[in-house]
Amino acid sequence: MCEAYINKPQGFKACGVYAGLKTDPGNSGNSDIYDVALLYSEVPARVAGVYTSNLVKGHSLVRSIDIIKTNKPCRAFVINSKVANSCVGKAGYEDAARIAECAAEKLGVEPDEVLTASTGTIGVRLPVDKICDAMPGLVASLSDDPEAGHKAERAIMTTDTVPKEVMATVSLSSGKEVTISGMAKGSGMISPNLATMIGVFTTDADIDYPVLDKLLRQAVSHSFNRVCVDGDTSVCDMVTIWANGASGVAISEGTEDYDLFAKALTDLATDISRMIAKDGEGATKLLEITVDGAASDKDALLIVSAVAKSPLVKTGFFGEDANFGRIITAAGYSGAMFDPDKIDIDVSGLPVCRDGIMLEFDEDEAAKLLHEEEITIEIRLHEGNSFDRMFTCDFSYDYVKINGSYRT
Amino acid sequence: MCEAYINKPQGFKACGVYAGLKTDPGNSGNSDIYDVALLYSEVPARVAGVYTSNLVKGHSLVRSIDIIKTNKPCRAFVINSKVANSCVGKAGYEDAARIAECAAEKLGVEPDEVLTASTGTIGVRLPVDKICDAMPGLVASLSDDPEAGHKAERAIMTTDTVPKEVMATVSLSSGKEVTISGMAKGSGMISPNLATMIGVFTTDADIDYPVLDKLLRQAVSHSFNRVCVDGDTSVCDMVTIWANGASGVAISEGTEDYDLFAKALTDLATDISRMIAKDGEGATKLLEITVDGAASDKDALLIVSAVAKSPLVKTGFFGEDANFGRIITAAGYSGAMFDPDKIDIDVSGLPVCRDGIMLEFDEDEAAKLLHEEEITIEIRLHEGNSFDRMFTCDFSYDYVKINGSYRT
Repeated sequence: MCEAYINKPQGFKACGVYAGLKTDPGNSGNSDIYDVALLYSEVPARVAGVYTSNLVKGHSLVRSIDIIKTNKPCRAFVINSKVANSCVGKAGYEDAARIAECAAEKLGVEPDEVLTASTGTIGVRLPVDKICDAMPGLVASLSDDPEAGHKAERAIMTTDTVPKEVMATVSLSSGKEVTISGMAKGSGMISPNLATMIGVFTTDADIDYPVLDKLLRQAVSHSFNRVCVDGDTSVCDMVTIWANGASGVAISEGTEDYDLFAKALTDLATDISRMIAKDGEGATKLLEITVDGAASDKDALLIVSAVAKSPLVKTGFFGEDANFGRIITAAGYSGAMFDPDKIDIDVSGLPVCRDGIMLEFDEDEAAKLLHEEEITIEIRLHEGNSFDRMFTCDFSYDYVKINGSYRT
Repeated sequence: MCEAYINKPQGFKACGVYAGLKTDPGNSGNSDIYDVALLYSEVPARVAGVYTSNLVKGHSLVRSIDIIKTNKPCRAFVINSKVANSCVGKAGYEDAARIAECAAEKLGVEPDEVLTASTGTIGVRLPVDKICDAMPGLVASLSDDPEAGHKAERAIMTTDTVPKEVMATVSLSSGKEVTISGMAKGSGMISPNLATMIGVFTTDADIDYPVLDKLLRQAVSHSFNRVCVDGDTSVCDMVTIWANGASGVAISEGTEDYDLFAKALTDLATDISRMIAKDGEGATKLLEITVDGAASDKDALLIVSAVAKSPLVKTGFFGEDANFGRIITAAGYSGAMFDPDKIDIDVSGLPVCRDGIMLEFDEDEAAKLLHEEEITIEIRLHEGNSFDRMFTCDFSYDYVKINGSYRT
């Protein structure tokens, strides 16, 4: 794959700066710390979004939702890490508005063409002055260079240990090409229906609102909505796609190009979702859980969710302990209906359960499989034709460490 | 409180032995290891039970459910730890039956007067020969001594670090007394609707089947069904109450004595539930979560459950990190409906959230409260009159350690 960065599609610029929100790198010489990202489109871009299902929503997020739902084209996106701008009351909306105004002024656009997102600690006021003070530098460094895009990604990361950037060039039926890029941050408080996660896609394709919205929802439903780190759903999650049409290539529903674009976007969303699960807080392993043969889609989702959220399953894989009874246990309490005497389970291709009976297996072979960094858990119910899949990670000492001292 | 042991009510005997199921203490000289418990009633006892909601149920448990539902009086209860006798197919039922037959023969009772329970690793055959070999010794050591009761409790423990035994003498309106004892094991895979938990109550009161069943269900609903360690519901959980009538005192519904007995049993169940949460695997703190003012009982339960299961909340309290935004976050994604701008939260009496806004607080005061071993989280919604409460514990390095290497 070519190098991926959010400002690769035509007409997009980006950058990230250190505005003093994250802990000062001080004399440690770590110049790689960034905490405010700016994404800019040279021409007005259509934006679609999907958001956290949490009843409590962050103030920066609510402001963006209100703008996106008006279907007014946007020009810029300011995203900060370290402070979530949530649960601080009316002041949180004012803070988000001030940041947008300050960005709009420097960019020469309208405040309601600037979206806002924040991720980090809840219940703390945003240091608006620091962000506004950084704005001239942010705007001045806007660029279509890969390095500038990578800085934007670094600026939205919190406990992420690796950047998450993806890119695809979509060759359309006409022989023309459009580009899609994506970036995201995880990595705790990750649960289906979005979490503390922020995902941004950009494309230079020209796509109308209802189509853009549909494409995003399709892509998210079996990717971002199938990632679980700890089952906690944050108040700030959002995935947006920005389509600025700078390629001059339009994509309409019901065409071959639509299908090509939809597949590319879904593949990118799936890739980045795997990256998020694999980089879950403290994770040492990626677990891919599939259920096949469920009686209904709902049952399939209930089971992959229960297995992906089970602390017993997750700590067992961390310890490389072949305690596979925990998988059937989680399936059993998931709320899905199935005949426990028909269930089959394979772990990374090793049969561990047939007809509800746990099998004996070669302990050496199991130990070898469990030592891998990527593990598949396949569950077959023989009840119907429904399938689902979820990505998660193991549960380690480091998860406890990271989340036992996040604020400090 | 007087010394508590399961064989304290009149007419009950108990004991526990080491049958070689748990790891051999070897030369370490630890003579305190027990793995098979026997409870015996000198006269036939009525038994009522409540069981795991898991679709997958252990074979020893299923056998006991089948007997209890016939309302046939029972005489003995064999409980083993280390092996769950689950997911091994038809052989698992035969194993449970053989253990009951072997106990029945030595006790001179019928096999279907002997209940069975197993807790431990799933998918492994019970070492029936070891248990049957231990049976003569078990029967010979049956006693009403406190020490024998304590051995029975030790024999049902798995990763528990402290025994859980309770006792109450109930003074009835007639001036007569009956005794209730209880013992339980936790401590991981603990979730509402019972978990890898086994609870046993004995009483010398004379109580008819439907009344006994009702008393148990009432006592369990807001105690055992409100304990959460990790949200995993095991396949072997059961709580039973044995009433042998040896005191000669009958208790009927609709009497003052019924209310006195019901209150005593509920209090004991609550006490033992707190013990289970506090001794959750790796736990360093007991968390008592209450919701008041919910619009419905369902909403109240959804919120206490979500907060009690949140790995972010639980690791935060382990780290004594005053990251209280995670509590409102969990409430928000619980599925309950409430106005996020009306929620109030106190942690151990310290106001941390009012009207949905996180408050500033004295960090030193918070640090002091968070350092305590018992912490209360009070959530008030101002939506209605429903209340609920759940006991849980924090999530520590040791939880991960215990469950990353349980089988080995």
